[in-house]
Amino acid sequence: MSSHSAPVPFCIRWGIIATGSIAETFAKDLLVDPASRGVTDVSHLLVAVASSRSSEIASRFINKVGAPSSCIAYGSYDALVADPCVDVVYVASPHSHHYQNAMLGLQAGKHVLCEKPFTVTAGQAHRLVETARARARFLMEAMWTRFLPISAQIRQEVQNGAIGPVIRIFADNSIGTNALKEFKDSYLTKKELAGGALLDLGVYPIHWIMQTLAPRPDPKPSSILSATTPLLGAGVDESTTILMAFPVTSPSPVSVQAVASSSLRAMADPDGHTPVVRIQGDRGEIQIYGHSWCPSKYRIIKRVQQFGIIGEAEEFEYRVPGGAHGLCFEADEVARCVRDERQESAVMPWMESLTVIEILDVVRRAHGLFFSDIVESDDYPVTMPAKMN
Amino acid sequence: MSSHSAPVPFCIRWGIIATGSIAETFAKDLLVDPASRGVTDVSHLLVAVASSRSSEIASRFINKVGAPSSCIAYGSYDALVADPCVDVVYVASPHSHHYQNAMLGLQAGKHVLCEKPFTVTAGQAHRLVETARARARFLMEAMWTRFLPISAQIRQEVQNGAIGPVIRIFADNSIGTNALKEFKDSYLTKKELAGGALLDLGVYPIHWIMQTLAPRPDPKPSSILSATTPLLGAGVDESTTILMAFPVTSPSPVSVQAVASSSLRAMADPDGHTPVVRIQGDRGEIQIYGHSWCPSKYRIIKRVQQFGIIGEAEEFEYRVPGGAHGLCFEADEVARCVRDERQESAVMPWMESLTVIEILDVVRRAHGLFFSDIVESDDYPVTMPAKMN
Repeated sequence: MSSHSAPVPFCIRWGIIATGSIAETFAKDLLVDPASRGVTDVSHLLVAVASSRSSEIASRFINKVGAPSSCIAYGSYDALVADPCVDVVYVASPHSHHYQNAMLGLQAGKHVLCEKPFTVTAGQAHRLVETARARARFLMEAMWTRFLPISAQIRQEVQNGAIGPVIRIFADNSIGTNALKEFKDSYLTKKELAGGALLDLGVYPIHWIMQTLAPRPDPKPSSILSATTPLLGAGVDESTTILMAFPVTSPSPVSVQAVASSSLRAMADPDGHTPVVRIQGDRGEIQIYGHSWCPSKYRIIKRVQQFGIIGEAEEFEYRVPGGAHGLCFEADEVARCVRDERQESAVMPWMESLTVIEILDVVRRAHGLFFSDIVESDDYPVTMPAKMN
Repeated sequence: MSSHSAPVPFCIRWGIIATGSIAETFAKDLLVDPASRGVTDVSHLLVAVASSRSSEIASRFINKVGAPSSCIAYGSYDALVADPCVDVVYVASPHSHHYQNAMLGLQAGKHVLCEKPFTVTAGQAHRLVETARARARFLMEAMWTRFLPISAQIRQEVQNGAIGPVIRIFADNSIGTNALKEFKDSYLTKKELAGGALLDLGVYPIHWIMQTLAPRPDPKPSSILSATTPLLGAGVDESTTILMAFPVTSPSPVSVQAVASSSLRAMADPDGHTPVVRIQGDRGEIQIYGHSWCPSKYRIIKRVQQFGIIGEAEEFEYRVPGGAHGLCFEADEVARCVRDERQESAVMPWMESLTVIEILDVVRRAHGLFFSDIVESDDYPVTMPAKMN
């Protein structure tokens, strides 16, 4: 081998739990050549997929996404986590099942990437983190948006002081639907699957606030206030707006005020030209366009520090390369962390995932938004009703 | 007289209390020919101006704004309200003095237009309204923005159902300053003059929410939550964000969530192209541009009621005609109400002004934002320190 040959990429072997639409998108991204996004140090193998209902469903999924014929279809999650060829389990089940399924993976000695919201309760999230720590496994909430190059660039702008210390943030994720009609059969409108705007959509704006303010010695807000609107007859929320304050910490000259809003009915960007996230600093503002889960553009506006004078905007457009959806970047991060024997990602640290779930807990408690005992339990194992999954 | 001759416009005679910048702008607007804005049914005469410090200051003010030589300069407010030629008193003193000065006018039998915030406390506002009612005088908070033709047009769009029932509102008034430097000598940064972002800037976004939701059987929000940031060392707030919910009322299908934000440091519109107010309905959105106190444009975006499809925007630009600043329209409303012997404007009703001050009270109390006993007192008369005025 010549000294000029490229090092062999670290290959990580994935097993996917559940076969819904997010699993499908993730699987397809795993199958995109990493070189198409300039990645040569890691690669991905999809080695197993499990449906809790039947191996036929898993087989159909494998065919649909175009996985290699070596990929094994399992009819139970237990079987998948017992497969010694699986390095890491991607938990793509409904919110209600994240805790049980992620714990199943960790207990079986697997690394785990768990869809957002990480868990339904903060208690569950803490137990997952304890378990990962105790068993020396990698664990991460699948907050893929953080790993998009555009998000990294925005964080870098903020950290470089492009807009000065951050003083106010507005972040919205609202999809403008008639949910009971358009998402009638989705987990989104189902209480038993821990649906609703807050847990599904609200996590993105909260994470935008978190990543904007990171790194902080303590990411927790000093106050968490909220308003919520129920989705009539569904037992979940249709719209929730959260107003948070974050304490002064260097280099912030003042406390930060942040609004995280989410709605199934209202719409974040009704015309394709409205910012969905606004990060306001002492010397400028970053406006983020597109979906808050996968921005297509940001504008950075340097402020003229004099009353009444407006600044000029610079625009940066972004498209996920290689025909991928963007979930590939979090997959790369998982591979690198596992390769480097890190249990926790520096980009999506446990502390911030825990803080987000704690915020959700506070908001849900304030409005009596509770799920069933089984869904909220942090016991393990708890058998979830099969029809849910 | 021919039957075709135009009716003589109703002429109302104004006396102005205080000589600061808002008084100057108002006086100049009074002197603009109403015909320039298409108004022929009312006209305005500026007959008197009072400074609490000296008649020389009032004289200089009269010269500066170009008022007719018949306009009388008074060195005390008592003298002005005793002038039988004054029909209506415009109270343009600092916030701290609104209650005492408006009461002075009412007790002297004058109609009163009182600058915003209407008063410092809800108790004061209630006493002003009681007094106006008991003495059969006209009284109105000078929330001029409501009387701009563009505001009337926006209200009409909402009431006509252009965006369907309103479900969420974001309204911001934030001026992006280094207040302690740029407004060092202004009432804006003075606790003794009841300055700060909330009372000065925050009233506009709250009023946008109010007028968007009007008419309602009861304009009061069902919850009022807030975060505030102090202006360091000044004893007033630098930034305040209020999250409100409004109960379901026909035709609202759900409760309304509304965010009213105001800041001396953050900036609502850093590039001249960012909406400062967003009114979101079930079938579309109205975005308001320019300053929230005097919009220059609105866009109406009709939503396509299907997930993932965006709507098209129509734009309506607006400029105050005749070289006026826009305060002229509230002056016309005052003239018409007085002419028609109405004590209260239907566009800016007492109930809504009272509700706004009650909201300010709730927010201030939540954060210990108090002014001095004299400023917060609803006793009358209370002698205010002269240097304040």
